[in-house]
Order: sequence, then structure tokens, then C-alpha cells
Amino acid sequence: MSIGGVERGSAGGILIRDGAVLAPEGWWKPGYVYLEQGKVRAAGAGDPPPALVEVAGRVLSARGKAVLPGVINAHTHFSQVLMRGLAGGRPLVQWLKELIWPLQSALTPEEMRLAALVGLVENLHCGVTHVVQHHKVVRGPAFTDAVCRAAQTVGLRMTLARSWADMGANPEPADAILDDLRRLYREWHQPGRLEIANGPISTWRCSVDTMQKTHALAGEFGAPTHIHVAETQEEVEMTLELFGRRPVDWLESIGVLDQRTQVVHAVWLEEGEKQRLAERGATVVHCPVSNMVLGSGIAPVADFLRKGVRVLLGTDGPASNDTQDIWETLKAAVGLARVANLDPTLLPPAQALRLITGGRTVQEGAPADIILVNLRHARAVPVHDLDSALTLCTHGSDVDTVIVDGRILMEESRVLVIDEPALLEEAESALRHLRRRLGWE
Amino acid sequence: MSIGGVERGSAGGILIRDGAVLAPEGWWKPGYVYLEQGKVRAAGAGDPPPALVEVAGRVLSARGKAVLPGVINAHTHFSQVLMRGLAGGRPLVQWLKELIWPLQSALTPEEMRLAALVGLVENLHCGVTHVVQHHKVVRGPAFTDAVCRAAQTVGLRMTLARSWADMGANPEPADAILDDLRRLYREWHQPGRLEIANGPISTWRCSVDTMQKTHALAGEFGAPTHIHVAETQEEVEMTLELFGRRPVDWLESIGVLDQRTQVVHAVWLEEGEKQRLAERGATVVHCPVSNMVLGSGIAPVADFLRKGVRVLLGTDGPASNDTQDIWETLKAAVGLARVANLDPTLLPPAQALRLITGGRTVQEGAPADIILVNLRHARAVPVHDLDSALTLCTHGSDVDTVIVDGRILMEESRVLVIDEPALLEEAESALRHLRRRLGWE
Repeated sequence: MSIGGVERGSAGGILIRDGAVLAPEGWWKPGYVYLEQGKVRAAGAGDPPPALVEVAGRVLSARGKAVLPGVINAHTHFSQVLMRGLAGGRPLVQWLKELIWPLQSALTPEEMRLAALVGLVENLHCGVTHVVQHHKVVRGPAFTDAVCRAAQTVGLRMTLARSWADMGANPEPADAILDDLRRLYREWHQPGRLEIANGPISTWRCSVDTMQKTHALAGEFGAPTHIHVAETQEEVEMTLELFGRRPVDWLESIGVLDQRTQVVHAVWLEEGEKQRLAERGATVVHCPVSNMVLGSGIAPVADFLRKGVRVLLGTDGPASNDTQDIWETLKAAVGLARVANLDPTLLPPAQALRLITGGRTVQEGAPADIILVNLRHARAVPVHDLDSALTLCTHGSDVDTVIVDGRILMEESRVLVIDEPALLEEAESALRHLRRRLGWE
Repeated sequence: MSIGGVERGSAGGILIRDGAVLAPEGWWKPGYVYLEQGKVRAAGAGDPPPALVEVAGRVLSARGKAVLPGVINAHTHFSQVLMRGLAGGRPLVQWLKELIWPLQSALTPEEMRLAALVGLVENLHCGVTHVVQHHKVVRGPAFTDAVCRAAQTVGLRMTLARSWADMGANPEPADAILDDLRRLYREWHQPGRLEIANGPISTWRCSVDTMQKTHALAGEFGAPTHIHVAETQEEVEMTLELFGRRPVDWLESIGVLDQRTQVVHAVWLEEGEKQRLAERGATVVHCPVSNMVLGSGIAPVADFLRKGVRVLLGTDGPASNDTQDIWETLKAAVGLARVANLDPTLLPPAQALRLITGGRTVQEGAPADIILVNLRHARAVPVHDLDSALTLCTHGSDVDTVIVDGRILMEESRVLVIDEPALLEEAESALRHLRRRLGWE
């Protein structure tokens, strides 16, 4: 007998039942999902067929919970975990010079390892099963390796966008950047699991030649180019001054604007630039909370969506957000778009939710990346509308269970893959040492 | 022997130790607080004196936690708990006509009781020890009484601003409003514990005469007038049309702008109006999340603070926010002020935090309203700066323990005053009945 490809007697998979399931045609209330060998093998509305209950190795009750694909945090910087809450209302340049840069140069690979672990566990708690980490500390392979190993430990899917600049302050030579990218592809690149991406830091610190070569190299592996674009007005000015073109125009003119391009922030764009993002199939990564806390500006997300630009959300790093709670970011994205346009009809919840699911739903054949979100708490009850409850009433801390590739990484909010209290203790202690080393205590 | 007025051998109070304590002169890291007979009887930096440890009836460890006065949610509507998540991206008038008004008229006193209990428990979870509830369902005393009894059950301090309109849709006769206010003062008003306030609905549905009379009546009890002001541009227009004055100017012209006036929203004000709020000592209640979700506009909070206007934060009701998490509102207030002004130096965390503490700190003689906020979780660790961690990394769900008037209402996030799971179940079931009654299912 076979139900959705599930053979009786096969190794028992995970059956999730009695929850509200986000299916391609809308919500099943309730529905069931059966996971086996890293895939969704069966899913449907109502109670699971008795045969599935029989073969399941684990049955998880999702009563009072929403069952949906793991969500995506499309931009963060793990190095900033040890810089959390440092901005404290400082202007951008003072913040960078007095705090962020000294800390970044002082970090050891061991501190980078701790920062990455805390960063990954924070994302795990929020139900993020795929995180894009713009890797900012690049002083030798030990730093990157520490982050990649941390991702393996925690079990999340990660895109590590290897950050670089070959112009401006502390530039790397172009050859060193390319050599290191090649090394990373050789040593770490595992499509869909741990992906290495090209991570130019911004449009005003990267040369045309290195942009083109790194984009081409990433292209050999089908990997993205992930770059900060037009976060502030100053950046647009600097790009204009250097290259005579606005940021998106410049990317297009040098052949680095295509379906593999991830444009982070995209706050200060002109109409033509928005249009070109749509035409070229680039992705915008919107980081509304970071843009708010840093006072950078409001990205025209409603415009992007209207023009058919693909938009994902990122929390940005803990030095500017200061959390990595993608649900908080989702609600901020909705609110900010509406208030900026004085229009409450923008980003209705079901559309908004797609900004963190990437439009994925629970269906047969999909990867077994599933999260359970508890909606039975005083902040969400009673639930009229599941999309609203998830978009407007959910915090990361409501995520109850996280499964990646068929493996349960967190259950009932308990992280199963690492001793979390010990990790947090270690991170606090590392910070005390770091501050002492910097003469801040 | 006496320590801070604590007599040896007196009934054992509550000693909180080993946490970071928000004191008048800044943070004690660590510090201690001793509560007895509804007051802070001793507080200080470092370890508690042995004599205090000896007399204490309960010792709570606050290791890894912040210890601060209970916070204030200065504007919400409990009736909207059963309307949570209903907006769904609808324009304001459609939202009111299709959803909010029908639901409001259909509510029974028993449903109001459930809504108030859930609303209070939600606020309790967030460490709110004083909530201002603009009481919107006024069809007979049964509704108000249900809310007042709910506040007694949960144990929070509440200001119930009795909502009314004597013009426009469904007006109440002025006499009925005044009679009911008098009844409420007689039956429920208990200063500092359960305060009855005058709650005119808005500047365009309330007559001059009834405004003046209700403000005077509240004044006899030292109680506020709490009113929606200039939430949208349309409201300013309507006020201008009716009274020939802008909202704040109108309030001033009729003698209802003073230190007892709480002006909720205050989004669309002119310079002169801001100045007058400062001069008259009125309080602005800023509801940034609600203003974002409804696309109402951005209140000029940085301006208010610069001009010396007293500002508190409110979540607004769950039909427009859709949560009552005052910490989420705090972070939104900071971010929105900065992004609206493109200035990251506005509302630095220590100043921002005062918007929900009302500037109160832990000190001898203060009421024993104390909360413990857990900072040892992956969303806040490591903590460089306590004000930042509280302002930018804290959600309501991080509040661990809530004490009001010396009574522990919640401990380790478990509500002690009510069977919370049963309450939530009951609220879900009430909603199903309500939707069926309305023909929505």
C-alpha cells in the first residue's frame, strides 16, 4: 500500500497532525503532514489516514498551532552578535568608528564561533530554516570555517555570502578575494545545505573588475551575488561620484544584475531602478527594522511588489536591529509600508507572509523543512484569521518546533542540537573578556 | 534594627536579588529590592544586607534579569480582543462598517468579560502593571462592570476611561453619559487601583457642553480626560468643519486641555498645537504600531519630547495593533521616530525606556509594582547595554515575573491569578459562537 508515496513498513517518519497547515490552496484546518527521508511524503486536509498513523515513527500534535514551511531570514551578519545593542543612538559613522570597527578587528576565531552559534540558535528559535549570513569578518579562513562548522552543528541551511571590498578602507587584493572564494567553493559549498555566495560589501567599495569576476565565479555554482545597495542617501551619492551611475544602474551596466542578484536594503531607488530590478529578476532583501533603528529610510516595498520584484525579508545584524526575529521584521515591513503610503490596504497578511516563506507551502515532494507556530497564547487568541495571527501577532518566541531536512532541531521551544544555556553563558563571558581587551571596562 | 524602614520580625516580604536594578542614578549591577506591605521598603546596589535576607519571606533570584518598575500601557480597548486580526488590510471605513461595528454591537457582557480577562492577561504577560483601557462597549452597566471585575481578578491597576459620543452615529444623551460616569465613580473608583476616567471618543463626535461637564466631573476625582485626537487627517478636517478649530486648539478653547488631559495618537498636529500641549502639561499617548498597521501616519514624537511634552506609549486595541505587547510598541516608537527623521540619534534607549516606565525607578517608598525581565536568551545575549537590551531586544514574552502592590501575579511566566489555558480555550470557543451568531461561518 502506498499513500503519497509512503510505503508501509518503511522507516517510521514524522507525522504532524491536528494543526492548521499552510497548503498551496490555502489553510487546511486541520491538516496533516508526513515527513520521511528529508521530504514531505504526504499532506492533506482533515485527519491523517489510519495507515499513515500506523507507519509513523513519531506523531507530533499541532493542536492550536500553525504548520508551515520553515521561514527565510535573507540577510544578517553573525559577527555582530557580539555587538548587539551597541548603536545606542549614535550617528552611523561614529557608531562604525567607535564601536563596530574596533570590535570587528578584535574578534578571534573562537569569538566568531560563539557569535555564529548564538546567531544560528536565535534564528532557529524564530523558525528560520534558511539564513543568509553576509560574512563580515574576513581575516583568514579560520573565521569563515568557524561559521560553517557552527551551521553544521545547529543544522540550519545557510547561505554564506563571503563579504569583500577591494576599494576604500582595509581593501583586500582582488586575487586574494577570488582565491578565497574558490577555496570556499572547494571546501564548503553544498547546494541547498551550505551555499557559498559572492558578498561584495557595497556598490561604492567594490571595483568593476572584481565584481564581474566574483559574480561569474559564483555563477559557475549557480550561487547568488549578495550586496548592500542604496541603504542611505550618502551611499547613492558615493556611487554616483565613483562610477557616474546610481547603484542599480551601475550593477546593470557592469552585467551584475540578474536573477542571481540579491539587492539588500534598496531604500533610495529611482523609478527606473525599481523597474530594472523587476525586468532583470533580481531579488530585493528588505530590512525594515534595521532601516528604522539606523534611521536610514523607508524602502518602497509596496512599489516593488506592484512591479513584480521578488522581495524577501532580512533582520540585518544584531548591531543594527538588534534582534534576529524575522517575525518582528515581518510585522515592521507591513506597518512601515502602510504608514509610509498612508494606506492600510497594502501588504495584506496573506501576501506579507510570503515575504518570509518565499511563497513556499506544505506539499508533497517539498523538503522536510517544517515549523510549528503556537497560536494558543494571550497575544494571539482568539484567532479570526491565520494569516493575520502569523503576520501581526507572532513573535519568534512563539515558534515551538523546527524541523530541517526531516530532523527535529527544536521541540516545544527546547533546542535539541546544542546546550543552549551553556552557550549563552559562554557568550556573555566572551563579551566580558572582549570588552576588557578593548579597554572598555 | 531597621534597614530602610524594615523591622526585623515583621511579616516576611519579598526580596529580589542578583538582578540588574533600574535605580534613580542608573543601573545597579547587581542590586536588590525588598518589598513589604505594598511598598519598596529597601533597595540598593550589590548583595542584600544579611539582615534583609533573614527577614524575607520569599527570596527571588533575578540573575540574568532586569528588575524594574512595572510598565504602563497607556491606551488599549479590551472589547477588541475578540476582534483581533480582523483588519486584514481593509480601508478604515470598510473595516469599521463590515467588521468592528457589527461585532461591537453583537458582544454580550459575558463575551466582554472574556475579552477583558484575555486582554488583562496579555498585558500582565508583558509586565504591564497599569493599563489604560478606553472602554468602548457601553450598552448598559453590565459591560463596564464585567471589565472592572476582570481587573480585580487579574490584579492589574487599571484606568477605565468611559468612552462616549453624544454626536454622530449612535449618540448617547448627555444626561445618560453624566449619570453613568457618576455611577462609575460611586461604584468603582478607587484612586491608584481602579481609576475611572472621562473617555470622550474623539474631537468630532463630542459636544462642547458634554466635554466640559464630563471633564469637570472627572476633575472632582483628580481623574483624566482620555480622548482620541488627530489620528488621521480626516479627523482633523472633520473637527475643523464642526468647530472651526484644529483638534488641540479646540480642546484648549473649551478649557479641556490641562495636566489631566491625555491626548491619544496626536499624529496630525501643527507646530502651535504641539507647543500648547507642552504649555498646558497635557500627556500624549503615542500608539506607533496601531498607527502603522492602520496607515494613519507618524506622530511627531521626537518633537514632542524636545518641546517637553509628556509622552507615554499605548498599544491600542487588538483590532488595529494586533497585540498588546508594549515592548514591541516601544521598539516601534524608537524606529519610527528615527526613520521618519532620518536620524539615528533620536530616542536613545535610556530615554525611550522612560516612555513605558513613565520615568519611575526602583526606590524606597515607591509602590511595590516590580517586574523581572529575562535577558538571558538568544535574542538578547550578550548584553552590552541594559537600556538597549530592554528597548530593542525585549518582547513581552521575556517578562518573567510581575508583582503588583506586593502581590506576585506571574512567576517564571506562569500566571498565578487565573487558569490561563482554560481562559484561552473559552475565548476561542466564544469567538466561534459569536461568528456563528453574526452569520460569518
